[in-house]
Amino acid sequence: MKNSPFKAHVDKVQPMEQGKWIQTRKIDYTDPDGKSRVWEMAVRTTRTETTGLDAVSILGLLQKPGSKGKHVVLTKQFRPPVGKVVVELPAGLIDPNESVATTAERELLEETGYHGKVTKESIPLYSDPGLTNANMALATVDIDMADPRNTDPQPQLEDGEYIEVFTLPMAGLYDGLLAVCEKEGTTVDARLFHLAEGLRLADALQ
Amino acid sequence: MKNSPFKAHVDKVQPMEQGKWIQTRKIDYTDPDGKSRVWEMAVRTTRTETTGLDAVSILGLLQKPGSKGKHVVLTKQFRPPVGKVVVELPAGLIDPNESVATTAERELLEETGYHGKVTKESIPLYSDPGLTNANMALATVDIDMADPRNTDPQPQLEDGEYIEVFTLPMAGLYDGLLAVCEKEGTTVDARLFHLAEGLRLADALQ
Repeated sequence: MKNSPFKAHVDKVQPMEQGKWIQTRKIDYTDPDGKSRVWEMAVRTTRTETTGLDAVSILGLLQKPGSKGKHVVLTKQFRPPVGKVVVELPAGLIDPNESVATTAERELLEETGYHGKVTKESIPLYSDPGLTNANMALATVDIDMADPRNTDPQPQLEDGEYIEVFTLPMAGLYDGLLAVCEKEGTTVDARLFHLAEGLRLADALQ
Repeated sequence: MKNSPFKAHVDKVQPMEQGKWIQTRKIDYTDPDGKSRVWEMAVRTTRTETTGLDAVSILGLLQKPGSKGKHVVLTKQFRPPVGKVVVELPAGLIDPNESVATTAERELLEETGYHGKVTKESIPLYSDPGLTNANMALATVDIDMADPRNTDPQPQLEDGEYIEVFTLPMAGLYDGLLAVCEKEGTTVDARLFHLAEGLRLADALQ
């Protein structure tokens, strides 16, 4: 019987190498048996102390006039690390002194043009915890299509941002994502795909 | 109107710094307007050319004798980059010449002791595409509890691996994860949480 994972702890974190936005760090840690070990990680250098979070990702839900179910607001963005256009939930880094809700509503407006209201915030989530400390909160945002500001949403993109906005029905999101990938040669953010897989699984269980 | 994200492409990838497992790289890329830009990324140095994928994550589903719905197999593991125990789907890196299905069944057995059969493989998914090219496939694995090898599953952990295995009912997975976090001070992998959020959302829509 191996020892409990709860007995491990970090001893030291050392900067190993330095980029402007990303730093590679070597971690010395003690394993549950008391043995010193080393791990390597990638870190965003931009994390604010306000929330202890790097980013917010936005589950923006809207009901189109005349349509039955809700739609999810999605983005298509070229991601240099992937070398492809990736379908994602709208998301952005948290500015200093910004809350999760403020970030979510600001980024949704900037990236998609929609005005929305946060109805729910997740706990901190780790996107790839074996590789990086990068974390995020998932904010659910209600977008009221009766709000006249949402009639003709205008994104406010920064220099260097090229984001296409679209929506897919939440019912059938899984098949909708695969269809976009097949048709347009995009790929999908793992977090968004897992959300779609959860929706699909629940349907399959009915 | 900003230009299409589909017009961007990578021009050059340079090693910036070097760890053993992770490398930080500077990417020169051309934006949709034809302007040269720079991005920084973290890369796993271990990716095999077999699949073009780093890792496989396993949605292991089993039906407990006498129980109605399916359970999901989960792990608790200390993750040095996070400095905490993280609740995750079982997962592992793909070995050279290994397929997604072989990796999934091997890692499930090593980490949890369960013998299972892959029933479904996702497309390649990117865990945090603004930060890294790290990617994965999600494999759904059916675990037959009538298989005598699954009566008393024995993990085969490597030196330095300390993994606790548990299951949660798929119905109510979202609340189950939050309860574990609150009770045990763990945190959750973002991909697993999004799967649970999808299951919850589908329920809420019924």
